[in-house]
Amino acid sequence: MDQNAKDLHESTIVIDCLEISNWSEEIFKKMRLGGLTAVNCTCSILENFRQTVKNIVWWHGAFDNCSDLIMPVHEVPDIREAKKLNKTGIILGFQNTSAIEDNLDLLTIFHGLGIRVIQLTYMEGNLIGQGCLERFDAGLTSFGLEVIEEMNRLGILIDLSHVGHRTTMDAIEASQKPVAFTHANPKSLCDHPRNKPDEALMAVAEKGGVVGATIFPPFLPAGNKSTLNDFIDVIDYLADMIGYDHVAVGTDFTEGQPKEWFDWILTGKSKKGPALNLNHPLKNPEGIESTADFPNLTSALLNRGYSELNIQKIMGGNIMRVLSEVWEK
Amino acid sequence: MDQNAKDLHESTIVIDCLEISNWSEEIFKKMRLGGLTAVNCTCSILENFRQTVKNIVWWHGAFDNCSDLIMPVHEVPDIREAKKLNKTGIILGFQNTSAIEDNLDLLTIFHGLGIRVIQLTYMEGNLIGQGCLERFDAGLTSFGLEVIEEMNRLGILIDLSHVGHRTTMDAIEASQKPVAFTHANPKSLCDHPRNKPDEALMAVAEKGGVVGATIFPPFLPAGNKSTLNDFIDVIDYLADMIGYDHVAVGTDFTEGQPKEWFDWILTGKSKKGPALNLNHPLKNPEGIESTADFPNLTSALLNRGYSELNIQKIMGGNIMRVLSEVWEK
Repeated sequence: MDQNAKDLHESTIVIDCLEISNWSEEIFKKMRLGGLTAVNCTCSILENFRQTVKNIVWWHGAFDNCSDLIMPVHEVPDIREAKKLNKTGIILGFQNTSAIEDNLDLLTIFHGLGIRVIQLTYMEGNLIGQGCLERFDAGLTSFGLEVIEEMNRLGILIDLSHVGHRTTMDAIEASQKPVAFTHANPKSLCDHPRNKPDEALMAVAEKGGVVGATIFPPFLPAGNKSTLNDFIDVIDYLADMIGYDHVAVGTDFTEGQPKEWFDWILTGKSKKGPALNLNHPLKNPEGIESTADFPNLTSALLNRGYSELNIQKIMGGNIMRVLSEVWEK
Repeated sequence: MDQNAKDLHESTIVIDCLEISNWSEEIFKKMRLGGLTAVNCTCSILENFRQTVKNIVWWHGAFDNCSDLIMPVHEVPDIREAKKLNKTGIILGFQNTSAIEDNLDLLTIFHGLGIRVIQLTYMEGNLIGQGCLERFDAGLTSFGLEVIEEMNRLGILIDLSHVGHRTTMDAIEASQKPVAFTHANPKSLCDHPRNKPDEALMAVAEKGGVVGATIFPPFLPAGNKSTLNDFIDVIDYLADMIGYDHVAVGTDFTEGQPKEWFDWILTGKSKKGPALNLNHPLKNPEGIESTADFPNLTSALLNRGYSELNIQKIMGGNIMRVLSEVWEK
């Protein structure tokens, strides 16, 4: 990598809008190698309240034991502090609302525990609305409307990546603040149920939010054969459609997760689970295979002719703007 | 009441397909006065697993402390035994699936604890499907399909009284065994979201199931001004439409429940709750105001010209036939 790209990457606030790895000190070291200023780290998927609290307790231990590598992010200045201290700021997030069970007040509890991003549904339906792999497409429930209102009030980013289409459109309309697809690609590039139709991508941008392009192979047109260059094509396509101010990166890295974990997240509460063929084993795009490879992204965007300003927006500035608006009381 | 009606009532197996009272020895005494052979008693509405287990523990105490009045029903011969012993058999049932949370295996646990009737949803949407007061009408979820399959396998009656229309129709189609509306009236008589369109009533009958006509005032055309005679009109109407073999009685008695309880079941997990105006205070139809008044039903049906055989079917025979088919392995 040339010195110019290296300098730019080092001076940039770099945020991965979503990782869901098998967390360990080794991964935190990779985040440092990748120059990650902050990462939205998933700490609840299908877990209930109690199990999620257990996961948060694990993070408390990690913040203590790996305090040279990571630090918790509760507000936007914490991200700037992480940059200054050469640490990776950890934004704790959920990919589902099972953790709040049937109790709206648990949102306040989790906000108090530092949760700052919540995806409304995972793959299937829940008490809030429908996931992208549910049997039918329907909107937000009455409870879901109240959840949106409460997340807006508390300052928790609404993530709609896995959410079904009608629930997504309902949520964009209902939210008083910007929302995000932290990790999803355009369906018009790769027709996968987890990817998003243009209508939804544009609505998120109009709401002032961001779309985090993802490297998860099944969501890329070339699947397991994708390269970093193919991923930059996705960013190009998104930037063309919704503008440089609304594109971000949400890798969806699943580093160190065993096959049993994939089986669990895909079958979930049911015995059969939704029909999502992941085409195992997954192979991340050459050039961006782990969180340590983030500098390659900056370099590839420079080579593609992106301005330094636009690179800084895409690599972290855009999501930081959204977090400022959403987290601010 | 004349001796003929009295004798008929005393010789009949009388089953109330649903009561949801503030359970006490006093109510069990009223059940005995009413000549009730068995009652489907709700022991979970919005509760989760742990809270529901607590309710079941309460029933264990009641079975011990009131063993002269009540006994548990786990299979159809228990109903006959209750008749012989002059006790009221208690069929424990749920009016929601919140108790199984997100775990199909909890159905086996609850079957083991004696639960024999489960309504798929209460008023709102849940992990299985949509309730009749949810913002939208949609079908069974993937998880819901598996719940039906498991309830069929275990032998738990599927109750669809509060369930939204498309989820109701989906469940009737998916079930391999008869299903029931334990407590609902025809929407064509009284246009209330809790009442059922003819299409659904006929589908339940075609499936071999029963419809329990209910005395809950908001679901009767004359509301709080209804009389026993008005209730018999509902039975007449149902018998005409779906036949004598498919009509039953599910009073939905809420004896001794305070206003706070109504507030709780109607708002549930949300702060606002679904829009159901109950027109408090409720006044049960004159002549059938408590579970002790059941003999008046037999008498009124006789006066209306029903044959003894049809009275015995409606008062308990039909639901017992369904329970035999559903509970049998």
